[in-house]
Amino acid sequence: MYCLLKCAPLILAVAVCHGWLFGDFVGKQKELDEISLWPLPQKFQSSAVDFKLSSASFQIVHAKQSSAGPSCSILENAFRRYFEYMFGDLKKLEKSRKKVYDSDLVELQVWITSADPQCDGYPSLQTDESYVLSVDKPSAVLKAANVWGALRGLETFSQLVYEDDYGANNINKTEISDFPRFAHRGILLDSSRHFLPLKVILANLEAMAMNKFNVFHWHIVDDPSFPYMSRTFPDLSQKGAYHPFTHVYTPSDVKMVIEFARMRGIRVIPEFDTPGHTQSWGNGIKDLLTPCYSGSSPSGTFGPVNPILNSSYDFMTQFFKEISTVFPDAYIHLGGDEVDFSCWKSNPDIQKFMVQQGFGTDYSKLESFYIQRLLDIVTATKKGYMVWQEVFDNGVKLKDDTVVEVWIGNKMKEELQNVTGAGFTTILSAPWYLDYISYGQDWQRYYKVEPLNFPGTDAQKKLVIGGEACLWGEYVDATNLTPRLWPRASAVAERLWSDKSVTDVGNAYNRLAQHRCRMVKRGIPAEPLFVGHCRQEYMGL
Amino acid sequence: MYCLLKCAPLILAVAVCHGWLFGDFVGKQKELDEISLWPLPQKFQSSAVDFKLSSASFQIVHAKQSSAGPSCSILENAFRRYFEYMFGDLKKLEKSRKKVYDSDLVELQVWITSADPQCDGYPSLQTDESYVLSVDKPSAVLKAANVWGALRGLETFSQLVYEDDYGANNINKTEISDFPRFAHRGILLDSSRHFLPLKVILANLEAMAMNKFNVFHWHIVDDPSFPYMSRTFPDLSQKGAYHPFTHVYTPSDVKMVIEFARMRGIRVIPEFDTPGHTQSWGNGIKDLLTPCYSGSSPSGTFGPVNPILNSSYDFMTQFFKEISTVFPDAYIHLGGDEVDFSCWKSNPDIQKFMVQQGFGTDYSKLESFYIQRLLDIVTATKKGYMVWQEVFDNGVKLKDDTVVEVWIGNKMKEELQNVTGAGFTTILSAPWYLDYISYGQDWQRYYKVEPLNFPGTDAQKKLVIGGEACLWGEYVDATNLTPRLWPRASAVAERLWSDKSVTDVGNAYNRLAQHRCRMVKRGIPAEPLFVGHCRQEYMGL
Repeated sequence: MYCLLKCAPLILAVAVCHGWLFGDFVGKQKELDEISLWPLPQKFQSSAVDFKLSSASFQIVHAKQSSAGPSCSILENAFRRYFEYMFGDLKKLEKSRKKVYDSDLVELQVWITSADPQCDGYPSLQTDESYVLSVDKPSAVLKAANVWGALRGLETFSQLVYEDDYGANNINKTEISDFPRFAHRGILLDSSRHFLPLKVILANLEAMAMNKFNVFHWHIVDDPSFPYMSRTFPDLSQKGAYHPFTHVYTPSDVKMVIEFARMRGIRVIPEFDTPGHTQSWGNGIKDLLTPCYSGSSPSGTFGPVNPILNSSYDFMTQFFKEISTVFPDAYIHLGGDEVDFSCWKSNPDIQKFMVQQGFGTDYSKLESFYIQRLLDIVTATKKGYMVWQEVFDNGVKLKDDTVVEVWIGNKMKEELQNVTGAGFTTILSAPWYLDYISYGQDWQRYYKVEPLNFPGTDAQKKLVIGGEACLWGEYVDATNLTPRLWPRASAVAERLWSDKSVTDVGNAYNRLAQHRCRMVKRGIPAEPLFVGHCRQEYMGL
Repeated sequence: MYCLLKCAPLILAVAVCHGWLFGDFVGKQKELDEISLWPLPQKFQSSAVDFKLSSASFQIVHAKQSSAGPSCSILENAFRRYFEYMFGDLKKLEKSRKKVYDSDLVELQVWITSADPQCDGYPSLQTDESYVLSVDKPSAVLKAANVWGALRGLETFSQLVYEDDYGANNINKTEISDFPRFAHRGILLDSSRHFLPLKVILANLEAMAMNKFNVFHWHIVDDPSFPYMSRTFPDLSQKGAYHPFTHVYTPSDVKMVIEFARMRGIRVIPEFDTPGHTQSWGNGIKDLLTPCYSGSSPSGTFGPVNPILNSSYDFMTQFFKEISTVFPDAYIHLGGDEVDFSCWKSNPDIQKFMVQQGFGTDYSKLESFYIQRLLDIVTATKKGYMVWQEVFDNGVKLKDDTVVEVWIGNKMKEELQNVTGAGFTTILSAPWYLDYISYGQDWQRYYKVEPLNFPGTDAQKKLVIGGEACLWGEYVDATNLTPRLWPRASAVAERLWSDKSVTDVGNAYNRLAQHRCRMVKRGIPAEPLFVGHCRQEYMGL
């Protein structure tokens, strides 16, 4: 009975599914158009039979058999959030109970099936995000092993609800069985080139949940500023942030981001990129950076972290000890990209060290020397690490569970082949640098990427665990970040969640245009795909 | 004593002016950096002598000799607006009078010198926007022939005020004599491809005033939708708008836009583009558009306005009669661009008409036939008109005061040469299509354009009366329009206002970065130029 997306060429695209299942119900087409699931579930069957939902009687409840109950705050919060998405501001809703009619759907039961619902846990790379959703009378049932799958299913349920011509909330009889294609589906935001106020970060976590993204890669510090407030080294932000009070993330801010993300099934992986991209670190930590030389005397400028001083490693040991306790995720991103050797080359002490170590004039050996010691430091904190591809390219010895991030567009397939050929897990961001804007519907370019389209064995393909859409901060801040990121990142969301066969751009356009309107309705100023309008967009203005 | 920008190569750029005038006051450099005038005045002299401004004692007042007084609402409103820009929310300010110190600047006197201050008038192409501003003790004096010059001078005065390290408002002793290089400095917004809520239009009029733009070219209707609510033909928006209630500009909305613009010295020139770009018109007016044929029978689709029916001209006569009364400006933009002949070619009645008129197969003659009659209709309403360049290119006979808008990037210089060679005034928009976004600092490309850099006599150059930055609506709506337009359009603002010699991109970068922060502070979410931050941007978050 399922319209399996994979079952036959005939029904590869959901447009065809719609045609097949709903072909006889032309009058319903308008309403069906408005069921615009994004990203498209793996298995999806709908029917023209529909039910009405009343804000006065409909409820989201814990199923009797569920291992989770009212004490599960992650679900309680999600119930409230999705109720509001579907019915509008809770404060404005009628409280009186209404008569229940036969055509009403009265509840959604959420049934957590595993003994530990993980109400107080954090999502991880191993998290099971699958769910099964059945919308039928008298109750809809959402089944998931744990809260993380339930969150994904709640989003899908809320996307199934549509307004009919009379403004009434409807939902069609539906069966969905869903799971992500890739386990790591991330968004990179950069809070160093421009400081991003908490509000902006939280709004984008909201939008991520609407698109089933599950990793916030927080590129929190870089050359221009160091907004992370460290308890161990307060001078890092005191002297390295754009402003020590207004342009910093306090420990409490960071906690709030992590908790807000957790409530939406999103991991927070902070990136503390070294040894390059560290100019702002140097303001707060004496002797951390390499002094550059002009001829025989220091020029007054500084280069990457000084890799020849023990003090550098002592600092990193203490610093990452703090980071490993502040951020609960099993992974830390250690950067390692774009190290400029010119300063190292200019420095006579570094030159001497190169000779002592027998590195000759190969400064990538010095880089590897640094990274190797850093990895050992981080390993001692019991964390796994992610690195940019250069670290792998330079032949640094990596732990088995290292995730290598492939970001260089040029020779991307070769790199994927090499990284997975060496047995490392990898994520792909090269095709999804969303800071590179251009005229027109560039979302289609992001959408058309097939991450596994590189030469390699099945075992190699399995090592590609996902990807990330990156919005580097050179040209974005609170004024323009959110509309620039959404719905362009949504294209990446579907590529990483839905089946490989979901590639019809025309069908995607229709669903994405609706999904974008849904984001706008929920308060995310996602920009338009093209000419047109949203049904609700300017009500009340 | 003036640092005339034109007086000598030595002092061509304001950076040099600063160096010359302020060279001895290194300690003041930080404050001076924050005096970031945009667009740069024609003649500017400043001194390190500074005065303090207190919100409790400083006043903007009518000079005793001024021909305008408290009944001049355009000035009264401007006084209030600029006071608020300088000192923050009026409601939050202390009302108590403070002691006045010697170092205080206590007032700005606004002195309108001509007998008619034009308090109740509208700005026009002939408007004198010049002003002279003198900041000295005990009073600053702003002299202008009329309110329009005073508005420009008030903006400049407000840009001179800066906060010192103690948060106190300061202003340096300054002499400015200023006037625009070009009379027509416009922004085109497109409210058809996406409806733009009133709020968005008003916010952008605010931003235009901050950049001394003086024309709002309102591309109000086009193929996708007809949001202009016509009293004479209500079906145009009833049937042609995205939604007849929520996505329309009522007569009262239009009045509000015009008045809001007038208060800021901005002309509103509406564009009703025909005969192409009119699909949305066809919904409300029977037989207005040409029925296209597929072989020998109508295909059900429609082309440009039908140029062979008298009813088309009867409609246009009534319609433009209304438009000529609703919009006070002396000009209406009649479009005339991108007429697609394929539908006309397919229609047997049109074919017959072509033969009758002896047009052969040259459909541009039919286009000219239509346009010629339309121009006569509009001329009868006593309005002048603007047209896109095709109308000139096709050899339509134009009134002497027609403004031809050059928009096609390819062969732009040749076109300017031809249009002005034929004796017509022209404005340039070809290099300033801001909808074409790209990665990086594209404002520099806009900034580097020299509008008069085409082969022609001095008399021809004088016919170039200005230009427009165009933000077509395919990819922008309320979610992303404002940050995409600003500060990119600011580059065009300075090009059209300041002296031809003001071309130093580095100096412009510094001033524009500050000017952008000023816009953000005033509530316009202008996007960042590059990495960095504004002093005030996240206060209170």
